[in-house]
Amino acid sequence: MAKFQINILGCGSATPTARHQPSCQVIDFRDRLFMIDCGEGAQLQFRRMGLKFSRLRHIFISHLHGDHLFGLPGLLSTMDLHQVEGTVTVHIFPDGARLLKEWMDFFCRSEEMKIEYDIITPGRHGIIYEDHALTVEAFPLYHRTECSGFIFREKSKPRHINGEMVKFYNVPTFMYPRIKEGEDFTTPDGIVVPNHRLTTDPDPAMSYAYCSDTAMNPRVAEAVKGVDTIYHEATYDDSLAATARERGHSTAREAATIAAMAGARRLIIGHYSKRYNSEQILLDQAREAFPDVTLANEGLKIDLL
Amino acid sequence: MAKFQINILGCGSATPTARHQPSCQVIDFRDRLFMIDCGEGAQLQFRRMGLKFSRLRHIFISHLHGDHLFGLPGLLSTMDLHQVEGTVTVHIFPDGARLLKEWMDFFCRSEEMKIEYDIITPGRHGIIYEDHALTVEAFPLYHRTECSGFIFREKSKPRHINGEMVKFYNVPTFMYPRIKEGEDFTTPDGIVVPNHRLTTDPDPAMSYAYCSDTAMNPRVAEAVKGVDTIYHEATYDDSLAATARERGHSTAREAATIAAMAGARRLIIGHYSKRYNSEQILLDQAREAFPDVTLANEGLKIDLL
Repeated sequence: MAKFQINILGCGSATPTARHQPSCQVIDFRDRLFMIDCGEGAQLQFRRMGLKFSRLRHIFISHLHGDHLFGLPGLLSTMDLHQVEGTVTVHIFPDGARLLKEWMDFFCRSEEMKIEYDIITPGRHGIIYEDHALTVEAFPLYHRTECSGFIFREKSKPRHINGEMVKFYNVPTFMYPRIKEGEDFTTPDGIVVPNHRLTTDPDPAMSYAYCSDTAMNPRVAEAVKGVDTIYHEATYDDSLAATARERGHSTAREAATIAAMAGARRLIIGHYSKRYNSEQILLDQAREAFPDVTLANEGLKIDLL
Repeated sequence: MAKFQINILGCGSATPTARHQPSCQVIDFRDRLFMIDCGEGAQLQFRRMGLKFSRLRHIFISHLHGDHLFGLPGLLSTMDLHQVEGTVTVHIFPDGARLLKEWMDFFCRSEEMKIEYDIITPGRHGIIYEDHALTVEAFPLYHRTECSGFIFREKSKPRHINGEMVKFYNVPTFMYPRIKEGEDFTTPDGIVVPNHRLTTDPDPAMSYAYCSDTAMNPRVAEAVKGVDTIYHEATYDDSLAATARERGHSTAREAATIAAMAGARRLIIGHYSKRYNSEQILLDQAREAFPDVTLANEGLKIDLL
């Protein structure tokens, strides 16, 4: 099974506490690592979760509040000290790129590791990263400041070879990759064997949307429509719905409503206000609006399958 | 007893590990807090040790390597979120002030809390902070980059009133503060009672020197001569003396030698290389050159008395 795993490094809000670290997640996509947000302490959480610096090549920053990026200087410096070679790309808003570059040019004068800054355009929905197997889209969220969510979409996977049938038709092994991609097979006698006789359907392609920080907004549901698993911030419980609106955040119930509107299969909530000593109330209220809710927690790994 | 307490928030080197946080100490001087260095994660350690943000007014940064200051943006932002009012002064080299100011002007636009930048002149030995009870001096260390140590000196303390004698001479209570400062007392009959008949010697004034990061250098011992307690980096053991020299660091034995040369009463060592799973070898080697050595450790509080 091709790996598509969400690692929760931090799911608190505003300030680190004894219970939660500031925002940071790592997507392990077939052993390549993609970080989303990088709160202070991310580098330590990264190592605690057994992740490898050498596999991290892309970091996506949702917005320019400190709790989402103050871990960057330390993380990048440590990667450099660990002799990571090649290019690490930070996808970030223009002001963030400027400020980060000034620090890294001063504090991390590496020969081996190059930091590239890929500018995210605030307010735009579009693909900002693509390779043979994955795309990453940025899309607007609705916070006190410009904020982007991110959607990770696996491209469609190869079809499964039907072992008995390829044997029956004497399909040579070198043809398998093309058969997996959907090609028909022509026998030496010139008979065309249609692909669907040689293969079965591929595993479904997975997708993951990261929505933090944002007020509840139907346009978010529209943007992430059809995504398999959604992470949506759930800073407050129902009793603080007005505070949520005022500060550009969401309640757990609102997060669940977005997941329902988007037709998601699963919802992960996080970015908890530090007032909660237990997040049970957030889980309970979210589950009233959407069935499959998971509480983010530091150290949690979730496989999308 | 007037409080003069060293709090160790972090005593690792270069990168945070499961065992040690990067450099950070807090001096609790009669309930006012002075931070020295501020590695990533300092704000969390600060709270873990039960310290109060509102009492922290001065932060001293020894040099511009990330493991000594990447905790500043998070710490200052959190202080602001905790509604600390008034001025917080960061004492730092010129480039550090410039880079930090650019970040804080962007990420921490506070109304209530003001951040001031006090420029430390590299290579100079002199007083950079003074109040009625304390001075702080910066002095040069010998690292790969410009680096300052800091000496915290308690001013001489008031003399102790001799209860029986002031009663015998009918010294009025309002005179006590001046008697404690060393004034003689003149009776209504015009007889002068010399101060030493009314008081006993004050408690000794304490002093503390912070020396990190530095190669071993006799000029450091000269600068901290007569200081009561010295913190000196001890990154390596004897077997890595050449590495220490090359990287501008010290061995534990060298740290102890400096303490001996300076005539200190006590030595605290720290800034351990992450290669050590136990610092016992550093302690053992330091103790061969100086008797009273303490291993710094996260959470340790040491009262100077």
